[in-house]
Amino acid sequence: MARTFDKTIYQSFKEVTDPSNVAPRNAALREKLAEKQLDAFLIPRTDAHRGESLPAAEQRLAYVTGFTGSAGLAIVAKKKAALFVDGRYTLQAPDQTDTNLVEIQQLPEAKLSDWMGKNLSKGARVGFDPWLHTPNEIRDLTTKLGGHAELVPGDNLVDMIWVDRPLPPKEKVELLGTNRAGVSAKDKLKTLQETLRAANADATVLTMPESICWLFNIRGRDVPNTPVVHAFAVVHKDKKPALFVDPDKLGDSEKQRLAETIDLHSPEDFEPALADLGKAKKRVWIDPATCPAAVASLLTDEGANLYEKTDPVSLPKAIKNAGELAGMREAHRLDAIAMARFLSWFDRHAPGGQLSEIDIATALEAFRREEPTLVDISFDTISGSGSNGAIVHYRVNTKSNRTLVPGELMLVDSGGQYLSGTTDITRTLFTGAASTQQKHHFTLVLKGMIAISQVNFPPKTTGAQIDVLARHALWQKGLNYNHGTGHGVGAFLSVHEGPAGIAPRYHVALEAGMILSNEPGYYLEGEYGIRIENLVHVIKSNVAEDYLAFETLTLAPIDTRLIAKDMLTNLEREWLNAYHARVLSDIGPHLETEDKAWLEKATAEI
Amino acid sequence: MARTFDKTIYQSFKEVTDPSNVAPRNAALREKLAEKQLDAFLIPRTDAHRGESLPAAEQRLAYVTGFTGSAGLAIVAKKKAALFVDGRYTLQAPDQTDTNLVEIQQLPEAKLSDWMGKNLSKGARVGFDPWLHTPNEIRDLTTKLGGHAELVPGDNLVDMIWVDRPLPPKEKVELLGTNRAGVSAKDKLKTLQETLRAANADATVLTMPESICWLFNIRGRDVPNTPVVHAFAVVHKDKKPALFVDPDKLGDSEKQRLAETIDLHSPEDFEPALADLGKAKKRVWIDPATCPAAVASLLTDEGANLYEKTDPVSLPKAIKNAGELAGMREAHRLDAIAMARFLSWFDRHAPGGQLSEIDIATALEAFRREEPTLVDISFDTISGSGSNGAIVHYRVNTKSNRTLVPGELMLVDSGGQYLSGTTDITRTLFTGAASTQQKHHFTLVLKGMIAISQVNFPPKTTGAQIDVLARHALWQKGLNYNHGTGHGVGAFLSVHEGPAGIAPRYHVALEAGMILSNEPGYYLEGEYGIRIENLVHVIKSNVAEDYLAFETLTLAPIDTRLIAKDMLTNLEREWLNAYHARVLSDIGPHLETEDKAWLEKATAEI
Repeated sequence: MARTFDKTIYQSFKEVTDPSNVAPRNAALREKLAEKQLDAFLIPRTDAHRGESLPAAEQRLAYVTGFTGSAGLAIVAKKKAALFVDGRYTLQAPDQTDTNLVEIQQLPEAKLSDWMGKNLSKGARVGFDPWLHTPNEIRDLTTKLGGHAELVPGDNLVDMIWVDRPLPPKEKVELLGTNRAGVSAKDKLKTLQETLRAANADATVLTMPESICWLFNIRGRDVPNTPVVHAFAVVHKDKKPALFVDPDKLGDSEKQRLAETIDLHSPEDFEPALADLGKAKKRVWIDPATCPAAVASLLTDEGANLYEKTDPVSLPKAIKNAGELAGMREAHRLDAIAMARFLSWFDRHAPGGQLSEIDIATALEAFRREEPTLVDISFDTISGSGSNGAIVHYRVNTKSNRTLVPGELMLVDSGGQYLSGTTDITRTLFTGAASTQQKHHFTLVLKGMIAISQVNFPPKTTGAQIDVLARHALWQKGLNYNHGTGHGVGAFLSVHEGPAGIAPRYHVALEAGMILSNEPGYYLEGEYGIRIENLVHVIKSNVAEDYLAFETLTLAPIDTRLIAKDMLTNLEREWLNAYHARVLSDIGPHLETEDKAWLEKATAEI
Repeated sequence: MARTFDKTIYQSFKEVTDPSNVAPRNAALREKLAEKQLDAFLIPRTDAHRGESLPAAEQRLAYVTGFTGSAGLAIVAKKKAALFVDGRYTLQAPDQTDTNLVEIQQLPEAKLSDWMGKNLSKGARVGFDPWLHTPNEIRDLTTKLGGHAELVPGDNLVDMIWVDRPLPPKEKVELLGTNRAGVSAKDKLKTLQETLRAANADATVLTMPESICWLFNIRGRDVPNTPVVHAFAVVHKDKKPALFVDPDKLGDSEKQRLAETIDLHSPEDFEPALADLGKAKKRVWIDPATCPAAVASLLTDEGANLYEKTDPVSLPKAIKNAGELAGMREAHRLDAIAMARFLSWFDRHAPGGQLSEIDIATALEAFRREEPTLVDISFDTISGSGSNGAIVHYRVNTKSNRTLVPGELMLVDSGGQYLSGTTDITRTLFTGAASTQQKHHFTLVLKGMIAISQVNFPPKTTGAQIDVLARHALWQKGLNYNHGTGHGVGAFLSVHEGPAGIAPRYHVALEAGMILSNEPGYYLEGEYGIRIENLVHVIKSNVAEDYLAFETLTLAPIDTRLIAKDMLTNLEREWLNAYHARVLSDIGPHLETEDKAWLEKATAEI
């Protein structure tokens, strides 16, 4: 029996913005340029917290250019304007902005500094909001400009012209008990203070919501997809830390409980607190890659001494404690039930040839939302059929939506934010009869995924070192994928987190407790995309003392009809069969008859 | 019939130096400290050219401390002295120096800056010879000292006390014709000048003999093992380059031919030439990791602007041209003939249980020296039987020399400098009946070596990325080796060269034409060492356009009696059989009956 879904619950099909707004807004901005004696102004797609999701009040780039992609930067000069976007957005950007007024520049080939060299006269003054750029970004741009133009920090010109700007989020803060957080905020603070003392730092300024939420065992709903509170914090090596957060976000009971370990302040108190650290000549640990340049200058202007290094919360947050792990396991169990029901539904309905990408994404979200502890999906679902699956960061919208034809592959990358934890899973779906080529490519990707699942490695091994194991089978056939193999995943936090991952750029040692994605793929342009993604958890290996290995957290069947069985080694086949047996025994009991029968078939030995 | 060898030809068993020299030499040095108002002086084991082999006149560390190892640094303070050596030399160093006067510190755990913090008073003046330290080293040490002591460049105090100091080498320079060098010096210069112009540099100062020799197509005999000329060079973007070399090293015909493309100068002219670049306010490319700090300060003192980057000759030198490749192939053919004769000899004599490590190394060198184009061995042979094989950088001497007992493994790592090119090969030898454990470990190492031999990889892949392929089989059993998988190898130049290699620290993309070693190993402490090393050459792969792969240059049998055949995959077995077939067909025709029969057996299919 067919089920129906309320498609309005699916929030992810972005409204197409109106390009006719671009002219008046650029004009208003240029008036401000003249007023402030500036020649140009920078508008990055970010806020002071640098998260993937932005509150509506921080969507300055979309307000000025119409462009709603997840990354980009505009520069509006007196006569000209440009929008820099990466390869994901070369189609979307011109569609959303007014290309008569804004030229689209493709990163990484196009460089902002080159554009400024060409389009601004020598000695030009370029304004920027120091809360929206990091010290590293400003230094890098200054170096590249080589004296051609001057970067001038100041108030944000967009905020001055923004009519009906949405209010900042005021969602309530939730406190995690130690049962969920695993370790009390008090104990986490103690460890952080030891780290500060060992680095000879008097304090650190935290500006990343994930770091603050993890440290203080709080969560929020300030942005979609990621359950964070937007706030700032100062942690001193030897006294109570200060949290700067809108008091409206805190209930009385939360205030009282937080005040036991934290000095609560309004956000307005943040700048004076930085100045105080400066006046006291403190040595302050900041992360120059993530903190706003404003933080660094407020500190140093008053005499603070900066110690620049990766956010000190980043590494301890990545190493999950027992409570977090238990939650992540529970979240994966809940997510696997939804996935099994979804895949079973897909197998029943896909052969009819009527399902669109939006139908499929909507159905998956509906299955997830049947679980009451789901807070949100963890990112906009990637639901790409046929050739759309080959676009690595594809997000379906009403214009791109395709109907899945039997014989086509379908790539679905999705995840959930449950109260217990965060999930991220990709499966390559299929209906019809798979071609030899489809099976060949799918099996090469699977071999890579299994290689990571099965590897044992010594201490101090980095994700950069093991990345090739996921690519080796593809490389031997002259194939590859143009993205990393894995990223860190937060525990009821951001679905993408540092500092560890599996890709050539990750030089942080993997440690027991880290949770990473394992997601090799293959993309045949114009034809299909294949990706298989499980989350894995770094555990102690049994091959030798100190050796590490991965335990797979994700529990959903991998379509065995897409496997060329003779391409698998015995060890690979054994891994797959054992994995499927675990999926069946862990998830089967939670399914009703029809779905359970489907799962038994889907997890049958090969 | 047993053959006999003149063991005196084997130069590598270092004389044990006399520790009783340490006291008077330290005392003399301390007089100089007082004279120069210094509190300590640094004595690194290096010269201004930073090669692995040092001329006798540059063996200051050995002169002062007695220590003759290939890496180390001493600091002599007013009352105390310390010698910093790495794990290779923790046994040798105390044996060679006077430990009552010099404390041995083990790197990397012990830090020079920590020692200086503890043993020198605040504000101490520490002298150093700026020709023997790089700008990076001096900056790094200055940062680590954090103001505790001052580093004072000046004349070398050791040279002032060195009685009977040997003269600098004056060996004749040899010119390579374009047939051997592959590309004329004129064309290489043109390319380098284009590189300088692209980097907006007016000139570069070359101080590494390998770079200078490669660029100007010259070779020399100034040090053992590496056929280089010690010299300096300045290459201008738009005029004739200057070579600063002892005129006694040049014959008349060489002078005349070199003068066509190069301005020849005496070494005394080098410092004024640097000052001239400074006075002309030139932008000069230097390599802060290899050039002497003296070069940087002579330039900047007079107003030059430094552009700091890896030596611009390093990368083009690593990418071998057709002439160099042809030479390297020829050198490998010659070396393989010597290796086959040696291995055949070993198989006849080892079962008697009478061969010592020195016997074996001497025999191998004698076989190599029968080839008249052998100039020298390319490094001191590693000849380690049984437990000595487990010492990764083991060099036999008359005290450590062991006799190989049947049933033991024997690790022999060696190479030759032929006029045509440079070789480096390791084979693990054996006599008796191999144990299951020996076969298991040998086969795991072999699997890693074959994995590198067989890999195909896309452009821009680095050695850091593929290193794990050589370790994977070992890791799966909880085993590993504590060294890189491969290093670059010069063409009739240094047996170790940058900038590419196969290890987590090598972030330079592999390019067609590079020659690297492929040498995984396994070391069971107190029992045995296993290493299998071939040189490989990066070639275009046939799996996809732009993909790369390795072609193996080394042609010597791998002992199939040590292989656990059921541990090999079909692809691995096929690789080994094809390799052995190639060894037989390429080398067999050059062997006499007895050795040929041996080779046929040694390369039989498995």
